Amino acid sequence: MSIKVAIQGELGSFHHEAASRLFGADVAVSACATFREVFASVEQEVIGLTAVENSLYGSINEVYDLLEKHRHQIFAEIELSIHQNLIGLVDRRPSDDIREIYSHHVALAQCENYLEQHFPKAERIEFEDTAAAVRHIAELGRPDAVAIAGRAAAELYPTTKILAAKIEDNPVNFTRFIAIAPPSAIKKLPTINQPNSTPKSSIILTTSHRAGALYQALGVFDRHQINLTKLQSRPIIGQKWRYKFYLDFEANAAETAQVIADLRGLGNEVVLLGNY
Amino acid sequence: MSIKVAIQGELGSFHHEAASRLFGADVAVSACATFREVFASVEQEVIGLTAVENSLYGSINEVYDLLEKHRHQIFAEIELSIHQNLIGLVDRRPSDDIREIYSHHVALAQCENYLEQHFPKAERIEFEDTAAAVRHIAELGRPDAVAIAGRAAAELYPTTKILAAKIEDNPVNFTRFIAIAPPSAIKKLPTINQPNSTPKSSIILTTSHRAGALYQALGVFDRHQINLTKLQSRPIIGQKWRYKFYLDFEANAAETAQVIADLRGLGNEVVLLGNY
Repeated sequence: MSIKVAIQGELGSFHHEAASRLFGADVAVSACATFREVFASVEQEVIGLTAVENSLYGSINEVYDLLEKHRHQIFAEIELSIHQNLIGLVDRRPSDDIREIYSHHVALAQCENYLEQHFPKAERIEFEDTAAAVRHIAELGRPDAVAIAGRAAAELYPTTKILAAKIEDNPVNFTRFIAIAPPSAIKKLPTINQPNSTPKSSIILTTSHRAGALYQALGVFDRHQINLTKLQSRPIIGQKWRYKFYLDFEANAAETAQVIADLRGLGNEVVLLGNY
Repeated sequence: MSIKVAIQGELGSFHHEAASRLFGADVAVSACATFREVFASVEQEVIGLTAVENSLYGSINEVYDLLEKHRHQIFAEIELSIHQNLIGLVDRRPSDDIREIYSHHVALAQCENYLEQHFPKAERIEFEDTAAAVRHIAELGRPDAVAIAGRAAAELYPTTKILAAKIEDNPVNFTRFIAIAPPSAIKKLPTINQPNSTPKSSIILTTSHRAGALYQALGVFDRHQINLTKLQSRPIIGQKWRYKFYLDFEANAAETAQVIADLRGLGNEVVLLGNY
């Protein structure tokens, strides 16, 4: 069965690269402008692939909120080493000023110190996607407009080239992507190149109102000697200054079921987002 | 002594309203385009006031990162009930299409469902500040361009009016602001109208590498019966998938010192951001 993968961004984006790694180079991708559109596209024959956090930028809160809203199941994850490049026109002269810098807001944030140092006055213009930003400057054809994107995007357009490579503020720059599908489709998924051998689970935890509820909830993981790899808080909408927590932890399906039962036994609400 | 308050945004912004509530209506504000500029402006005679989280949007990660970088001390906090409005030209006719919606990205996010329902095709254009977005549409003078901002901004410009009031997606919409100053200036601060009677502290906690380190750290608060009001994780730059935690808790200066000593005793790193 050939399956389509909805990604945020177009050909040449980091999402496209992640999809190729996970599902093979001939993967059929469906380009979406926003994370919201990726989640809305997921159905029986369409799975989704979305970035969820970057090691410089942090969590992509919008994706966490969409995970709660749509309740698709996470069935795989993959991380990519990310290198950002300053990309301009091939016929640009070194003397040409740079006035406009186009990219996705996460990519702009990853290069903030570089941009502040080299182009303090240039306008940063947020674009839906890094690869789309390169297409845009190719179409503009103006030497004062540049983009920030991966190498694949620069190679896709014959009129663009890399002006400066690896401009991210810190070389330890990784993005973690998750693959999502409707719960009913989980059993007929395509084969994936899962590089991660330790099984992992993701849950949403809403603690009871009791004092120390989060401390007691973390005690469950401690008792089962389960390694918590991530804890991200998000506001509970409609309740001022109350939070829910997105947790990732290393556990197989049986351990995950036990942890969830124990957490619920303490009066917490738990939603399983996937065991993968 | 008259003191200046650096705020993100201009006259008529929510930051301006928060500054007036905390320091009095005649407060002298210095308008900054970005959070980064607010933090850079803070010095002996200039304090800063910045939003740190919103009950619909969540934490403003950039502000947390700037708190760690600059190490200014938090000396007060205030929360505002936020109502967003769709603002257009006074001479706009009901039949005029709306094609462009200008506002700060946090305000756009607070009204996302409303915008999706009423103006799915209109372009959302991010602006530095809600009040600046209103000034911009007043200058444009085009009936197809509107802004999202507070009532004060609409009233500031004679050519603009509120087209739709309270368009935020949830009525429980609050923003929490903090006042910051250099540690050396803390003793000569202006009198504030501090509405919060329970003393609070903010710290950055970097846990030791031990398994269960976060659980053990939260045990310190449990033993001292100290109420944790917030826990926000942020990536540690340069260390893949490791996190530090921003914690807020209710404690006076003596209790805070005890908690910090106990946390350090367990091998954690702690930075005190303020007791207020």
